[in-house]
Amino acid sequence: MKSISIQCEAAYKTKQTLAKLPTATKNAAIAAMAAALIAEQSTILTANAEDIALGVETGLSAALRDRLRLTSERIQGIADSLLSIHDLQDPIGDSIQGWQRPNGLRISQIRVPLGVVGMIYEARPNVTADAIGLCIKTGNAVVLRGSSSAYRSNRAMVTVMNAAAVAAGIPDGAIQLLEDCSREGVQTFVKMTDYLDLVIPRGGAGLIQEVVQHATVPAIETGVGNCHIFVDADADHDQALAIIHNAKTQRPSVCNSAETLLVHRDIAAVFLPKLAIHLGNTVSLRGCSQTCQILPTAMPATDADWDTEYLDLILAIRVVDDVHTAVTHIAQHGTLHSEAILSNNYSHIQLFIQSVDAAAVLVNASTRFVDGGEFGFGAEIGISTQKLHVRGPMGLLSLTTGKYVVEGNGQIRT
Amino acid sequence: MKSISIQCEAAYKTKQTLAKLPTATKNAAIAAMAAALIAEQSTILTANAEDIALGVETGLSAALRDRLRLTSERIQGIADSLLSIHDLQDPIGDSIQGWQRPNGLRISQIRVPLGVVGMIYEARPNVTADAIGLCIKTGNAVVLRGSSSAYRSNRAMVTVMNAAAVAAGIPDGAIQLLEDCSREGVQTFVKMTDYLDLVIPRGGAGLIQEVVQHATVPAIETGVGNCHIFVDADADHDQALAIIHNAKTQRPSVCNSAETLLVHRDIAAVFLPKLAIHLGNTVSLRGCSQTCQILPTAMPATDADWDTEYLDLILAIRVVDDVHTAVTHIAQHGTLHSEAILSNNYSHIQLFIQSVDAAAVLVNASTRFVDGGEFGFGAEIGISTQKLHVRGPMGLLSLTTGKYVVEGNGQIRT
Repeated sequence: MKSISIQCEAAYKTKQTLAKLPTATKNAAIAAMAAALIAEQSTILTANAEDIALGVETGLSAALRDRLRLTSERIQGIADSLLSIHDLQDPIGDSIQGWQRPNGLRISQIRVPLGVVGMIYEARPNVTADAIGLCIKTGNAVVLRGSSSAYRSNRAMVTVMNAAAVAAGIPDGAIQLLEDCSREGVQTFVKMTDYLDLVIPRGGAGLIQEVVQHATVPAIETGVGNCHIFVDADADHDQALAIIHNAKTQRPSVCNSAETLLVHRDIAAVFLPKLAIHLGNTVSLRGCSQTCQILPTAMPATDADWDTEYLDLILAIRVVDDVHTAVTHIAQHGTLHSEAILSNNYSHIQLFIQSVDAAAVLVNASTRFVDGGEFGFGAEIGISTQKLHVRGPMGLLSLTTGKYVVEGNGQIRT
Repeated sequence: MKSISIQCEAAYKTKQTLAKLPTATKNAAIAAMAAALIAEQSTILTANAEDIALGVETGLSAALRDRLRLTSERIQGIADSLLSIHDLQDPIGDSIQGWQRPNGLRISQIRVPLGVVGMIYEARPNVTADAIGLCIKTGNAVVLRGSSSAYRSNRAMVTVMNAAAVAAGIPDGAIQLLEDCSREGVQTFVKMTDYLDLVIPRGGAGLIQEVVQHATVPAIETGVGNCHIFVDADADHDQALAIIHNAKTQRPSVCNSAETLLVHRDIAAVFLPKLAIHLGNTVSLRGCSQTCQILPTAMPATDADWDTEYLDLILAIRVVDDVHTAVTHIAQHGTLHSEAILSNNYSHIQLFIQSVDAAAVLVNASTRFVDGGEFGFGAEIGISTQKLHVRGPMGLLSLTTGKYVVEGNGQIRT
């Protein structure tokens, strides 16, 4: 088994070459990788079947096995996703800004790759291909640390993709899948400051906190979303019902789904019964005491509920006095991800936008829109819930940085 | 003594108020702080004299005592620096970008404060005032962890500045000077993830590495600069002599001064003797074997010299075969800060710009220009040598982040 440090160093050594690759080479490699995934899908499906069989043996839950499972259709989806990365504009080499100083120095800032990007993620083979595509498009080397339960699938995909990429002109070594995917290996990996420029953890709160606690490589916190929807006194009820239903049920397992509803007290008695009917039996409700008085079917919420990211068909409901109380609740319990206000009151909306600290604040729209695809970024490598470098959906630009070029004709500083 | 956590929490509690302060209030506070420093300078000078006296007792070096020393003139300089921050445009609330989606959602990204900024620095009282001014201008709370050897001076300055700021409308608590400036306290401070959004270490390599090793709060690495100048075969000799002299001697103790010279072999025999004369006796030269043959006065360089940031009037010199060898040397020994090429060869310059990984690449200009003031940023809180969030000189914008505002009229995701 190759060591983590050997694999990171191998990626590091390709940095200079990658940074200078023309867009045409990178695009050709991405197209070739997509084609190879389709052409060699039988190898990949065989490897995936081994992972699934092992998952059954080791007691991997049915939900996790479903995320891990590849099919011909899913491989087509992964290839299509690579082709959409192929079609994005290459940001490398773009001028970010430029100006001239009074002494004649011309300063420009150009967009360059970060260098080597580390990804730590769970048993989702589509992340393997997306991360490779996004990193190659931006001239970065990538070191993948996937879940051990997806190792065979990942290895098959990376072998096929790497061969296609190298044949198209990508330096061999630029795409690494860590052979050591032991649990202890994570801590070693996130300290590879000599080789890695960035590490992105993508997964549950436990994984993300482990990375943040131990990383010396700059890390971007992603994805934990205890998202709120505040229904103001004058919200349009039909609109609110549709938005809450969408935000809670369209895909409950993801970070941008809503977890807690805050309802203005003036409308609670009228609105909550309508909501209970609209959501039906599929969503379990957990309410504050006022909510439970209005909705006897709701279970009483405990303090822990306000801080829980259910990722499930459960909705906590609290009746609040006004927009100020809603803002305060969100400040105490939010995770700086996505927070929505449903209202028609201009000053309440402005106050909410200004006061709520989050990557995204939504007005009269579903929290589910906070997503790279929905924002129009074409692809997404995660959603940052921290404030440095990138905040919110992370597209191609989040894998780049700037380099200042200062051009003179003999200037010295006085 | 107040605990680090109590002080960080106090700063945290002012975040929401600070984020919404109008520019006029922030500017009034900055002007008032500048005026108060002048008006109450006798208190500050008395406190500073105590620090200096203690520094003599504890064996603080003369150079460090000089950096620590305040005079009426230096306080005027500090106040002037605050006034220049006062005059900068307030970036908070600016629209960074905005667009509309096909479904009618309007997405905008607005510039907001980071929240609470931690600064860890050495015994330089001017950094105290600059950090406060830059943070208040950008609506951030600030927690300062200055050197214990400057504690009395910092406390006097912060007391005066805080009183002036509060009188002008800044919430009390937004400006904190840690009372616990023990060495162990640094590690506690950089783990205050509940309260701090960013920590910036500013000082020597030891301090910066300690922060990077232990921080769980996002940190920005600053300031270590092992900067190179490559003199190409066809460089203009007179220009090169002036630039090298400037980059080495104008202020040798700072990170953007040059430490190693790489000279093309074709001109070494002619250029190096001119350089030795031009630099005179003030600069000690340490050369590779070829350099020492040409310049018998140069000391032989050891391997360690190529990795040393002298911060002193010492210059390492190496004769190289060509621009490729120069680029390779810089990749091995550079610290990603500022790297210069002196040349008139278009393709060599392009290759150098593209291949060298650094915050700034300079062409025919002194490395000393890589500085917030010289870039025209008006103020600087450090120079980032890492690639996330901000790279190179850090102006006001580096203390801000974006917040997405998504405005709809009932959109749901399908």
